[in-house]
Amino acid sequence: MGARPFVSLTTDFGAAYTAICAGVVYSVAPDANVLVLSDEVKQYSIREGAMLLRQALPYMPIGTHIAIVDPGVGTPRRPVALATGRGDVLIGPDNGLLLPAAEVLGQVTEARELTNPDLRLPAVSSTFHGRDIFSPAAAHLANGVEMSTLGPAIETDSLVPLEVPKPVIGNGRLTLTVLYVDDFGSLILSGREDDLRTAFGGLNPETKVRITWTGQDERQHRARVPYRETYGAVDPGHALLFRDSSGWLGIAVNQGSASTRFGIGEGATLTLRPVAPRG
Amino acid sequence: MGARPFVSLTTDFGAAYTAICAGVVYSVAPDANVLVLSDEVKQYSIREGAMLLRQALPYMPIGTHIAIVDPGVGTPRRPVALATGRGDVLIGPDNGLLLPAAEVLGQVTEARELTNPDLRLPAVSSTFHGRDIFSPAAAHLANGVEMSTLGPAIETDSLVPLEVPKPVIGNGRLTLTVLYVDDFGSLILSGREDDLRTAFGGLNPETKVRITWTGQDERQHRARVPYRETYGAVDPGHALLFRDSSGWLGIAVNQGSASTRFGIGEGATLTLRPVAPRG
Amino acid sequence: MGARPFVSLTTDFGAAYTAICAGVVYSVAPDANVLVLSDEVKQYSIREGAMLLRQALPYMPIGTHIAIVDPGVGTPRRPVALATGRGDVLIGPDNGLLLPAAEVLGQVTEARELTNPDLRLPAVSSTFHGRDIFSPAAAHLANGVEMSTLGPAIETDSLVPLEVPKPVIGNGRLTLTVLYVDDFGSLILSGREDDLRTAFGGLNPETKVRITWTGQDERQHRARVPYRETYGAVDPGHALLFRDSSGWLGIAVNQGSASTRFGIGEGATLTLRPVAPRG
Repeated sequence: MGARPFVSLTTDFGAAYTAICAGVVYSVAPDANVLVLSDEVKQYSIREGAMLLRQALPYMPIGTHIAIVDPGVGTPRRPVALATGRGDVLIGPDNGLLLPAAEVLGQVTEARELTNPDLRLPAVSSTFHGRDIFSPAAAHLANGVEMSTLGPAIETDSLVPLEVPKPVIGNGRLTLTVLYVDDFGSLILSGREDDLRTAFGGLNPETKVRITWTGQDERQHRARVPYRETYGAVDPGHALLFRDSSGWLGIAVNQGSASTRFGIGEGATLTLRPVAPRG
Repeated sequence: MGARPFVSLTTDFGAAYTAICAGVVYSVAPDANVLVLSDEVKQYSIREGAMLLRQALPYMPIGTHIAIVDPGVGTPRRPVALATGRGDVLIGPDNGLLLPAAEVLGQVTEARELTNPDLRLPAVSSTFHGRDIFSPAAAHLANGVEMSTLGPAIETDSLVPLEVPKPVIGNGRLTLTVLYVDDFGSLILSGREDDLRTAFGGLNPETKVRITWTGQDERQHRARVPYRETYGAVDPGHALLFRDSSGWLGIAVNQGSASTRFGIGEGATLTLRPVAPRG
Repeated sequence: MGARPFVSLTTDFGAAYTAICAGVVYSVAPDANVLVLSDEVKQYSIREGAMLLRQALPYMPIGTHIAIVDPGVGTPRRPVALATGRGDVLIGPDNGLLLPAAEVLGQVTEARELTNPDLRLPAVSSTFHGRDIFSPAAAHLANGVEMSTLGPAIETDSLVPLEVPKPVIGNGRLTLTVLYVDDFGSLILSGREDDLRTAFGGLNPETKVRITWTGQDERQHRARVPYRETYGAVDPGHALLFRDSSGWLGIAVNQGSASTRFGIGEGATLTLRPVAPRG
């Protein structure tokens, strides 16, 4: 039996509307493997969807990946398909959602606007492009239709970027933004271990970090946590700074929620300093 | 590779019990494509399940569709299979859940009661017919078993109907019921654009609507919204009356929840009047 | 078309991280049928996961079943594969999660520790063994890899057991623990009908039961319920003691939640006495 074409779905629709999209894919491409990567992205949170796609798609089979977090549905924002260096095609709105994932999948090698009416459902609503435009386009690709038939080529430079804050690397301090809060309440930060090493002038197995932030009560808060590789390195209920499985820095509580513990959510700004600067 | 038989599942069971049903289908019909359309129907809400099926099944492949919202499990209500004009078979309890979907799939062409013990699991519990009766029946159909082997034919007229309030069309007013609240907090109403056109004596691109209803505080509330085709036609946070992607009227808030904004839930009665009657 | 290998997934990860595991399985074994049995197990609740697996896996096709509720990830707890008498392989952490299901699937016939680096992802994180160790091992098994290549054999006696309270059977009283609360709010208890029959000196169609427990308010509570085979045997809103579809005793409210009604959750201790002792 030959391998079946793979189609993933990532949305902020909830279960039912996402399943309708899956049904459309199966209707057009009955031999596809359709996997819902998530139907639980926070509504209209393009950043959360983008972070999830960047984290997850490298672990998916090469295939067609539909992603829809689309506050602009019904406005002139473009529906697009992006081919990647790895061989995937990402399908969704041109609003920054797809680009971080495309970067880790070998960059965008070709971009098309989805304008071909033959590759849409016969009646296109103004409120549900996931069903009427994105899913049929993905299914036709899964069936072997060429990218070039989707619609006109788009200049890669014209794609709308995702806005993500850059880490601020100082001498003995690193300022990061909470990019998103995962299902365990862990905080994914806008920097990597290399940024921490640069800011701290090195790292060692005993490194501890003082984290400061302004709480929702407008007051300054602080926490002191070790930098460790695994949750299990601290006792249950204790917090740590860690390197997540995609290489990014994060803050977690072993068997608990760092978001709840510290009252920190997406978008918060944290400053990290070494507790005992290296001599 | 030939197309695989398609089986969908819609329940109010949550993830795990619905997956048990899917497992039973795969056990009997390993070549099926099984898609969970929803495991999140509001518990015992036959109407919500029926509305979802009516909306979603036209976008599913022709196949066997299991639907279980079944407050009467363990009582004598009949387990049934309904063949549709499009070629689907709908499987579930005879309580009105399946009929609105059957109507949009070409009407019921044949109905059977699921009585054949050879097409059930060996031990049938009194609390989980989804696993023991409905899922194996659907899987056997997916394997090519004939409808007639499921059990005796049922008169279509004897099927229990779903009770849905009819729109009340007056001269310059349209009174509707909120049939359900979708995942975005939008309100799906018990009438269509044609009803609005009749009540208002016509529609135009500038039509605005005054909506009045009695709130949970027992007081009269009102809102004035434009009638538009797309969420994006109003600014984020603004409300509108729209025609949903299945052709029914709805009330939404662009990038927000109409249900939360207006404090309106399933079952509420709304009266719509034109703000400026046509001359 | 030959039957496709079956792989199930049960986790406390939520949708997205569980789907990443599914993606890894599809990447290694594109012909597999992958079913998410649950991604909603209560976080770190090994008992709830174990009870669900015991209940659900007998209804799944024979296959490879990944189960991950793993508070010890990143510590030296062993990743294991357990072959069952029925022909399944259960994959997960050695923390008791897998054993109750293995018992109902024909006992553990072979156990292996997952140490073979060739059957893991190239980079193994310390926080996400579901993705990096368990899923690839399951997928290789689905592809036909032999159990013996996974790693060294483990003595079955050395597997970590699940701690579950035993029923206490007295003369005219039965003391049970609430093992878990299902999606309908029904209480699954740590005893079976046979235990009830022994404690009560027999059962009959008129058996009523007095249940007593200590509430969260530290006060003694009681309820009197009939012992019936089906929810529908009592009026909507009424409670009953029943034999669940897996043969265990439970307490339910017809069309309601027993957990909410009585304020009883997982871990509570209940004492059952006959209302009218048999003469």
